[in-house]
Amino acid sequence: MLFGCPGQVSGLILRVGQCFFAAASVGVMLSAHGFYNSTAFCYLIASMGLQVLWSFGLACLDLHALRSKKNLRNPVLVSLFVVGDWVTAILSLAGACSAAGVTVLYTKDLTLNYCQSPSHFSCNKFQISVVLAFISWFLLAISSHVMFWLLAAV
Amino acid sequence: MLFGCPGQVSGLILRVGQCFFAAASVGVMLSAHGFYNSTAFCYLIASMGLQVLWSFGLACLDLHALRSKKNLRNPVLVSLFVVGDWVTAILSLAGACSAAGVTVLYTKDLTLNYCQSPSHFSCNKFQISVVLAFISWFLLAISSHVMFWLLAAV
Repeated sequence: MLFGCPGQVSGLILRVGQCFFAAASVGVMLSAHGFYNSTAFCYLIASMGLQVLWSFGLACLDLHALRSKKNLRNPVLVSLFVVGDWVTAILSLAGACSAAGVTVLYTKDLTLNYCQSPSHFSCNKFQISVVLAFISWFLLAISSHVMFWLLAAV
Repeated sequence: MLFGCPGQVSGLILRVGQCFFAAASVGVMLSAHGFYNSTAFCYLIASMGLQVLWSFGLACLDLHALRSKKNLRNPVLVSLFVVGDWVTAILSLAGACSAAGVTVLYTKDLTLNYCQSPSHFSCNKFQISVVLAFISWFLLAISSHVMFWLLAAV
């Protein structure tokens, strides 16, 4: 059995981790002052929200399979998981990267002191949120590679 | 035989397309005034440059295999291609998305008229470059999925 298969404890841990980090990223971003000024940050919230829903659903399914000792490895189910995983992974990488680009622009490139002025933007929270989004994406990338491998080997 | 395998005409076309669009993206970005003000645009140039090198190398290999009718489908070679393809694909998606985030910020979000002032930034070129980068990434994503499938099926 591969590490991180659906219906295994390692798979469940991966899903819970994705869900947790994505939710934390959304939470930190929502608490940051001035995020709504940038489309990239709003998109990060949308893509991380989608990832929370997807990972939470699959975590519930894994838990159910663990408790009832069902086998989730039939081809139709796995190909459904693969498509969903890949779409979610690409969207969340896109969200994390575009938010990272804008964060770097605010903190380093623009000579307008967006971050220094205390009333304006909370750049620290932007950075924390982007890092959490990248961690969440990394866990999802592991899951989706395992799924793709399973599908090819089914 | 799968579409886009190494050592096939379809694979060669994919590689040439990746190389062409990535090079076009770098060219347009380099000709845009003011790109060096943003880390994200410099990173886009770096990642697209890497993709040009990688795709050009593999296109040459495909051409060689086509001319000499060699079989490139041994496991060691395919796993090397898979790792290179995935790393390049993730880096170029990251570059395209971060540049897209910054471009949207310049064109829509910031109320500073970065794009309107004729002397300042050439936002149209930024947009064209980002679109070319996304096309190039999409072709690379097809190649890398085919490669991963091949590796799992070898």
